[in-house]
Amino acid sequence: MTSKPVPHAQVPSVTMSDGPHGLRLQGEDADAGQLNLRAATPATCFPPAVALGSSWDVDLAYRVGAAIAAEAAAHGIGVLLGPGVNLKRSPLCGRNFEYFSEDPWHSAELGGAMVRGLQDAGVGATLKHYAANNQETDRMRISADIDERPLREIYLRAFERIVRRDKPWAVMCAYNGVNGVPLSENARLLTDVLRDEWGFDGLVMSDWGAVRNRVAALRAGLDLEMPPTGGRTDREVEAAVAAGDLDEAVLDRAVERVVRFARRAARPTGDGTGIPYDDHHRLAGEVADNCVVLLKNDGGLLPLNPSAGTVAVIGELARTPRYQGGGSSQVSATRVDVPLDRLRALACGATVEFAPGYPLADGPQPDADPERLASDAALLAADSDAVVLFLGLPRQDESEGYDRDHLDLPDTQLALLRRVAAANPRVVVVLSNGGVVRTSPWHDDVPAVVEGWLLGQAGGGAIARVLFGHVNPSGKLAETVPERLEDSPSFLSFPGSEGHVRYGEGVFVGYRGYDAARRAVSFPFGHGMSYTTFAYRDMTVEFDEAGANLVVRLTVTNTGSRAGRETVQIYSAAPADSTIERPVRELRGFASVTLSPGESREVDIAFPRTDLAYHSVRDDGWRVEGGTYRVEAAASSRDIRLAVDVPVDGDPPRGPLTARHTLGEWLDHPAGGPLLLARLAAVSGGASPLAENPMLLRAAAGVPVEVIADFAHGLISQAQLRELEEEVAAAAAATATPDREVGSPGSR
Amino acid sequence: MTSKPVPHAQVPSVTMSDGPHGLRLQGEDADAGQLNLRAATPATCFPPAVALGSSWDVDLAYRVGAAIAAEAAAHGIGVLLGPGVNLKRSPLCGRNFEYFSEDPWHSAELGGAMVRGLQDAGVGATLKHYAANNQETDRMRISADIDERPLREIYLRAFERIVRRDKPWAVMCAYNGVNGVPLSENARLLTDVLRDEWGFDGLVMSDWGAVRNRVAALRAGLDLEMPPTGGRTDREVEAAVAAGDLDEAVLDRAVERVVRFARRAARPTGDGTGIPYDDHHRLAGEVADNCVVLLKNDGGLLPLNPSAGTVAVIGELARTPRYQGGGSSQVSATRVDVPLDRLRALACGATVEFAPGYPLADGPQPDADPERLASDAALLAADSDAVVLFLGLPRQDESEGYDRDHLDLPDTQLALLRRVAAANPRVVVVLSNGGVVRTSPWHDDVPAVVEGWLLGQAGGGAIARVLFGHVNPSGKLAETVPERLEDSPSFLSFPGSEGHVRYGEGVFVGYRGYDAARRAVSFPFGHGMSYTTFAYRDMTVEFDEAGANLVVRLTVTNTGSRAGRETVQIYSAAPADSTIERPVRELRGFASVTLSPGESREVDIAFPRTDLAYHSVRDDGWRVEGGTYRVEAAASSRDIRLAVDVPVDGDPPRGPLTARHTLGEWLDHPAGGPLLLARLAAVSGGASPLAENPMLLRAAAGVPVEVIADFAHGLISQAQLRELEEEVAAAAAATATPDREVGSPGSR
Repeated sequence: MTSKPVPHAQVPSVTMSDGPHGLRLQGEDADAGQLNLRAATPATCFPPAVALGSSWDVDLAYRVGAAIAAEAAAHGIGVLLGPGVNLKRSPLCGRNFEYFSEDPWHSAELGGAMVRGLQDAGVGATLKHYAANNQETDRMRISADIDERPLREIYLRAFERIVRRDKPWAVMCAYNGVNGVPLSENARLLTDVLRDEWGFDGLVMSDWGAVRNRVAALRAGLDLEMPPTGGRTDREVEAAVAAGDLDEAVLDRAVERVVRFARRAARPTGDGTGIPYDDHHRLAGEVADNCVVLLKNDGGLLPLNPSAGTVAVIGELARTPRYQGGGSSQVSATRVDVPLDRLRALACGATVEFAPGYPLADGPQPDADPERLASDAALLAADSDAVVLFLGLPRQDESEGYDRDHLDLPDTQLALLRRVAAANPRVVVVLSNGGVVRTSPWHDDVPAVVEGWLLGQAGGGAIARVLFGHVNPSGKLAETVPERLEDSPSFLSFPGSEGHVRYGEGVFVGYRGYDAARRAVSFPFGHGMSYTTFAYRDMTVEFDEAGANLVVRLTVTNTGSRAGRETVQIYSAAPADSTIERPVRELRGFASVTLSPGESREVDIAFPRTDLAYHSVRDDGWRVEGGTYRVEAAASSRDIRLAVDVPVDGDPPRGPLTARHTLGEWLDHPAGGPLLLARLAAVSGGASPLAENPMLLRAAAGVPVEVIADFAHGLISQAQLRELEEEVAAAAAATATPDREVGSPGSR
Repeated sequence: MTSKPVPHAQVPSVTMSDGPHGLRLQGEDADAGQLNLRAATPATCFPPAVALGSSWDVDLAYRVGAAIAAEAAAHGIGVLLGPGVNLKRSPLCGRNFEYFSEDPWHSAELGGAMVRGLQDAGVGATLKHYAANNQETDRMRISADIDERPLREIYLRAFERIVRRDKPWAVMCAYNGVNGVPLSENARLLTDVLRDEWGFDGLVMSDWGAVRNRVAALRAGLDLEMPPTGGRTDREVEAAVAAGDLDEAVLDRAVERVVRFARRAARPTGDGTGIPYDDHHRLAGEVADNCVVLLKNDGGLLPLNPSAGTVAVIGELARTPRYQGGGSSQVSATRVDVPLDRLRALACGATVEFAPGYPLADGPQPDADPERLASDAALLAADSDAVVLFLGLPRQDESEGYDRDHLDLPDTQLALLRRVAAANPRVVVVLSNGGVVRTSPWHDDVPAVVEGWLLGQAGGGAIARVLFGHVNPSGKLAETVPERLEDSPSFLSFPGSEGHVRYGEGVFVGYRGYDAARRAVSFPFGHGMSYTTFAYRDMTVEFDEAGANLVVRLTVTNTGSRAGRETVQIYSAAPADSTIERPVRELRGFASVTLSPGESREVDIAFPRTDLAYHSVRDDGWRVEGGTYRVEAAASSRDIRLAVDVPVDGDPPRGPLTARHTLGEWLDHPAGGPLLLARLAAVSGGASPLAENPMLLRAAAGVPVEVIADFAHGLISQAQLRELEEEVAAAAAATATPDREVGSPGSR
């Protein structure tokens, strides 16, 4: 996608390329749009975000960004259309493979690192799809109806962090709307929030075809419509200016941003030479090594012994691998490591035998009889010392453009699994899938399960290295594997209908929801096993000197017999007496540490006090509740190893105490409580009618005092309440410390 | 609560009384308001709505209304402040005992019958609390944030049915707001919906203390503020009129309604004599007989043999019964049947021994040692032939004014249960509770569980009659008993915070949610056992001649050896290919049939075709989808006995087919599909590029055709799409049948 230069205005042409995990190089006729995904020039296909997210490795994400930038620069491409940091609201979203996580902090860390990797190498990043583009169903028309708190805490948060910290050159607005307003015309999100609050000063471009009304889009803050419409919408803009419907200053502002962007992103057309494809393939493999998630390994079946016996490799996906998803992100890989080949290559003494087990539409035997394939595979399994069974989602099951409607593996594969597991107790299932698949209940029938996601072009080698123990697996899930689709918190309100989808689960997305509902899951967020074991000890949590950050320190020891990498996760839990509906725990930071057997190392993870805030609808801003927070060090969201309770000062509530506040709120208020009680005691002669009736007190605690005044004639008058309000305000003013902004650092 | 007469204007005084299940007679100083729940004049305490709802008996609800009206009339009371037909959104709501059901159709049937019973006897009903008053937490300030579809289909629906059909004299507006607007100022709900749509012509009064701004309330359509504010708000109204802020016509309209209401409701002050309290007590008992729900009866432990052996009655609630809830609905009963006494009276040969088991704050031994009581009870249980164990919620656990925060029975009771169940295998648990309590997992430890709810003043006799088999239980649950609180669909968004509660589960309230999520429950909606058994056969479903109603016919046979009453429930399931997120099944009707052993009877249940409609946000109205509906005859929502598939014509979609519709919608359209395909075939020379690529077709199906036109240059232009739109409109007009209003009856 190359823009037209305007030589007389010194506006150069800019070339952009799809490809959060590698370039999609379509050549010059590409602007026919994304419905024409024709064969493209090769580029390195790195692990898609679903896999990269499982690495929890910020450095690797940075290096992937840098490598893609190098390929882009060599092709004369100045801007990459990625990364995508939308939250995985539902496991059904067809585009989940392009996104990192069900947690915004995790997404911000991985996505932000990729932005830095790209931009440090001189290629602009386009953060997408802003915002709340969490499904493919009706994506071009649907309104994501989201309350302010989940919008801020969950769906905008990764965008906010990355915009503030990593300063991407561009942001791509999503197809969908939020709360009834299409993103391309959403002045609040494109201008008020993105630019005015977060300080974004780059270019806002549309997703391809997301603009419905170019004039409205310009007004809202959209600078560049993509793709061009052959001049049609340019004429609409001209007409609107001529008619006085569009302020020319609005147009000038957009032009200025486009020009600035073009000058920043312009580079000579490259010839694509000089790209170190071998190095990049190795990097893709190194990344993939860190993305594989060992879900289960009963009896230490893995790693397999590469030196002896027969290993049956079953499943067409071992020979015809899926390593990326469908749609605009599709890369024409420079080469592809086939798992079956790599397993054969690493088997030094063992014999590797193969049976396809089931047909795939894009495999060499698309029309083979599944029954015959399965029975052949079962025979092979019975004759082997161990089985590696490749299962996964066929290509057509997940793609940009549509969502899945269930989480199950294909029936033929599940039937094969039953036969193979019956034939051989030593079965390792290796999964290939971009979105989560259900593993319950079949994971009980096999001793080992490896989540291989879509691992990019070098993934086949990574799988072989993990299975034979050349690599100790270290990936951890960045999304929950639920027992059933129906358990997922968004289940009742996904994907909506008639143009609206209500995000009814609020902030309880992913593990926040499973934990709140104390729902059993197959594998929790953050889970991933190793061939070694790790112990956690000596955890401390302290504020730094300025009181701005909480610093967590702990020591991790490799207590097993192999070197390995452990990702320590830090969660926080809100005060138990919080009146706000808060998740059981929320990720606040993580760090990876690679340790030799017996080695220990101290891990330090700091996070700002303000990260403890919730978004207060009442205060219209972030607010830290005062109280005791529990800070946890964990191997997964359900494997909490250590915890420390930390008292944290809260932000003062905004606004005065009024007669509209309840009796309970008055009694809890440091100034209002004593003043009100004194007044009541004066009336009743010292006795408190409420204290003698706990049921009445409990009911009255929820009643605004102005209503109580109307009910209980003679107890207190409305006029006396106004006086009390003033006394409380005066008392508060007298004891007030200098004003502290909500969300600013506090001290212990 | 007696209003002031205005003799010179012929406006009489009106006396109103609290009490959906009986009069609350406070005498003349009662207008001090609901914080003063002092001792009152006795009246008959009928079973509260939670119990009455379990009867599923419309005639009984009518008779209760008539009896309350008789008591009211005798006291000179012209208006009753009830019934309450709010939905049970969460089992935690502290006022659930005052409401009928988690299903709006059920609530409308029972609540409407009570309205008719009252008003046919000349006493006005006040339908409350309009609307969406589904929690006590922060009820005076909270905004229930509800999408239009659940608001219409769930929360307004019982109000709508009763207002349209039963014409209550008054509607009481709730404390809370809906979507940010307090009900007392909610012009849309008080005027646009209630009066203009539903045709309500009665009085709207406020809940006690619900008015924040009397002037705004008048403007919105609130006629009468309750309680009076000593003239304070009258002066505000005068000032607003004087300042021109309030149109005097608005005030006149309210005055006119108040006067009309007063004239209608006025009656001479009664002396309270001549009330047939004995008859009413008997009626209260007859009703209670039909409300008791037999949840479980393994091995036919019930009914107990009244003639022999020792029956241990354990539990203070047998001696100190709870028979109503706390708050404004509290009745000073004329007498109270104590379960323990009634059991003793009905035990002809059996010995009844009692042990309190646990203390209650309002029992005779409030400070007794629970450990000693429990061990005494266990000893008694061990020495007895059977045990009736009364468990339930202590009085202070549930009340108007606050919600519960868990569903569990008190720990002391659960500990007692374990000891008693260990001592004797023949234990019947009898529950006393206004809101659902968790029975999982303890219900596995006892063979029989009887849900006794709060049964009103004659409930003790009903329990004894059921236990000893004088009455064959026939109540069925009008709400689900979940396995865990966390399973309830509203769990993640109840009770909200900071003044807002999001009804995130949408229409999936109660069994609609449990069924959609295929969640196991302890006892499903509609469940209730009998001492006999019933068989269902020969079900047919047909439209009546006008095509307006679906008529369900089936035959029910008593296949056991005792006479009994069966409530047959009719559910419908939306077409399997519906694109709307619809419940698995929804109640459409029910009927009770009382049968002797071996007797069969045909049951006819009709419901309007329009009840199959969902509320379409797109069409801004009710819309029946065309397709095959499954109509089910069921003994509970999870005990479907018979089902018939019925093809139903749909309402035509409103609005024309446009270029903003997706390719998939065009292809599905009877006129648009062929026209578009013809146009595309003309361009491509007959071949369809989409048909050859199913993934692309699936993705493209979700794309508006105007976006496809921009993407795929040369395929079709925007101008050609406008032409197509016109051709489709012309084709539709040519074939159109005369306009049918959405929601009007259709034919097969």
